[in-house]
Parts: sequence; structure tokens; C-alpha cells
Amino acid sequence: MAYKEQYPSKLLEEAVDAISSLPGVGRRSALRLALHLLKQPAENVHHFTSAINALRDDVMYCSECMMIADAPVCSICSDRSRDHGTICVVENVRDVMSIENTGQYHGVYHVLGGIISPINGIGPSDLTIRQLVDRVAKLVSPEAMFEADAPGREANVPEVILALSGDVEGETTAFYIYRQISGYGVKVSSLARGLGFGDDLEYADELTLGRSIVNRQIFKP
Amino acid sequence: MAYKEQYPSKLLEEAVDAISSLPGVGRRSALRLALHLLKQPAENVHHFTSAINALRDDVMYCSECMMIADAPVCSICSDRSRDHGTICVVENVRDVMSIENTGQYHGVYHVLGGIISPINGIGPSDLTIRQLVDRVAKLVSPEAMFEADAPGREANVPEVILALSGDVEGETTAFYIYRQISGYGVKVSSLARGLGFGDDLEYADELTLGRSIVNRQIFKP
Repeated sequence: MAYKEQYPSKLLEEAVDAISSLPGVGRRSALRLALHLLKQPAENVHHFTSAINALRDDVMYCSECMMIADAPVCSICSDRSRDHGTICVVENVRDVMSIENTGQYHGVYHVLGGIISPINGIGPSDLTIRQLVDRVAKLVSPEAMFEADAPGREANVPEVILALSGDVEGETTAFYIYRQISGYGVKVSSLARGLGFGDDLEYADELTLGRSIVNRQIFKP
Repeated sequence: MAYKEQYPSKLLEEAVDAISSLPGVGRRSALRLALHLLKQPAENVHHFTSAINALRDDVMYCSECMMIADAPVCSICSDRSRDHGTICVVENVRDVMSIENTGQYHGVYHVLGGIISPINGIGPSDLTIRQLVDRVAKLVSPEAMFEADAPGREANVPEVILALSGDVEGETTAFYIYRQISGYGVKVSSLARGLGFGDDLEYADELTLGRSIVNRQIFKP
């Protein structure tokens, strides 16, 4: 809208300003949400705002993997049944949740907190790459205490999985990390790229289809 | 989703619960918003939550028209240059803002705070109809103090415009209010129904087009 809306109340306007600062929420939706909150019992609104304040003020980050946690070490890193010799490097918290939801991964994670993106002014030092390198160094030290023969990993060789997105920024970040850790003698892998389950060959993009052919797998019926 | 997502933190889960209680915000968007707030400086988040708390705790309702206000009487009702002999009855605050944005209306408003809807358990007593009837009674009393010849209104005859939506609930509410106030000798009008500006005849629904023909107007080039 080109013109500035007239609000009947300064308080309403300030609430709309605040709510519309959220990504993907326009002023019209913000007004709808503000008026919705206004109709709720005061205690519900206070519960709403204090849940957000508590998240911002009290949440912790795991000292191992930098994941959001309620304790100094997150529940995944403190789970001794997981394979601490495999580290899956992801961009953010949502990626951890997505991979956990598959139920297919039993190693630990490392949350970068972003991705190298010169256009957004994010360089390697803004991410937790330094901490990742330290972890890798510790993993290959003689005192390393990870289960030696976890399923899906070569015995005694730690593995770092670069689970980053397939765009230029993801590839750049993966390459940067690879250069930092390749000297430690760990196995470095990345996610398989190919057609998704149920994807139609006809509609797949050329890059994906090309990789699917090059990286074809033995047929296991 | 059929399954319950696993959250890495109780605080995150509670914030997602709170945010996804907003209308039209799913758990996936709520997670995105929660993680966005987590990345913001603490003072921004506190500003966000206190703007919402302030709205809920400190906003007032105009004692005349029941509109959201920062004072006991809203800026429209306290504006003596407006025609206090014309009351436009609307469902909610957003309707007032929409009509104000047209710049075409110079009377005052009455905010019902909802619409009669048996299916949602909203009856006449849940709305501000009683207060409207009191206002109308005051308007036709000998001490009434409104400008006698405002543009677009017959001299000395107060007018109530029922600016409600054109669905069954809106019509029901309009009819209920009409029965309550018709005894006071005020003029009762409703919004013109017809084709919108720029509407294509071919795509208009039959009800709207039918009303447009029945209520046709003298052509003023």
C-alpha cells in the first residue's frame, strides 16, 4: 500500500508494527493477528509473550554441537547410544529436526548457524566452523572415545557428513569446511543427490537427473 | 502431520505452541518465526512482546462507539466536525478502518464487536446492540446535539447505516437491529450492493447482478 494506514489507537499501531516485523507477515495480517490477540483473555496473551521471552532469554546452545538445548549439552550429544564418531554438519536447527524426523541417522550433529554467503555479509568466522575443526581434531586424537564400529561407518575412522543445501552457497561452505578438515584423516561425505522418491523423470531438472545417472546404484529388489 | 515433532528444547516447543495458536499460523511457520525471534537481539524481542502486552493490557474502548481507542472517547467521536447524527454500524475495528480509508464518510460509528451467529454461539447480548439502542434513543431525544443538516442526510433526521456483510449472518444481524431501532423514527439504511468498480458483468454472480439491475441508478455522466 502506498499510503500509511490510519490506526484508531497508538497501541494497536505499535503492536502491528511489531508483529509485521516478523518475516512473511504483512501489515494486513499483522492487524488481523493483533486484533485476534486483543480478543483473547489477558492470561493467554501473557502466556504467549512470556513463552517468546523465555525462549529468547533462557535457551542454551549445546557446547558440543551448537544446537539449541535446555542444558549445557544437548540431548543428542549426551546420548551415549549414538555414534559420536559421525558428525553431520548442518546449516541450522531446522535441518537437525528434519534429519531426526527421518529416524535414519544415529550419529551426532554440528550446527553451523548459517552458511557462507558473501552477498549477505556472512563469512566463515560468523559460523561455528572453528568449533567443528576443534571437534574433528579431538576425534582423531588418541584419547578419542567413540564407538569404534558403528553401522554405516568404517571401523575407527571418524566421518564428517556435509549435509548442506545444493546451491552455490552450500557448495562453497562445504568446500571451505572440506579444506579445513581434510588434513585430519577423517572421512568426509555429503548427502546423496538424485531423484526424490515418487519424482517423475520427465519433470526432474537436468542437473539432478544427470547426477542420478552418474551416481546410479546397484539395483536391490 | 500425524506424528508429534521432536523439539530439541522445551522452551522452543513452548514458543512454537504459543505462536501456532495464532489463527492461520501452522507449526512449521511457528517454528520458522520462533527461530527468527531467537536470532534477533534480545531488546528487539522484548520490544515485540511488550508491544503486544501493552495492546492487550492498556487499550481502551470508546464509551460512545465501542471502538478501540487510547482515550475514554475515541478520536472520531470526539471530533466535533463529524456528523454525530449519522451512525454507521459495523462488525469490527477493521471495518471502521476500511471505511475511514475511503475518505467518503463523515459520520460516526458503532462497533458491534461481532455478528449474530448461532452456529458460533454469538447472540445479540454478546454484541453492543444494547448500547446502540441507547445511543439512538439519545439521538432522537429533544436535547440531542448533532449538526442538523449534514451532507447526505435529511435535515434533523438521524440516520443509522447498517454496514454489515452481505451473508446470512450479516442480514440476520441487520434485521435484528432494525427491529430494535425502527421504533425511534430514525432513518435506517444499508450499504449499496451492486457491481464493484471495474467488475466484469460476465463474471458477476447472479444475486449481485440482479440487485444491480433492480437498484439501478440515474446515469450521471
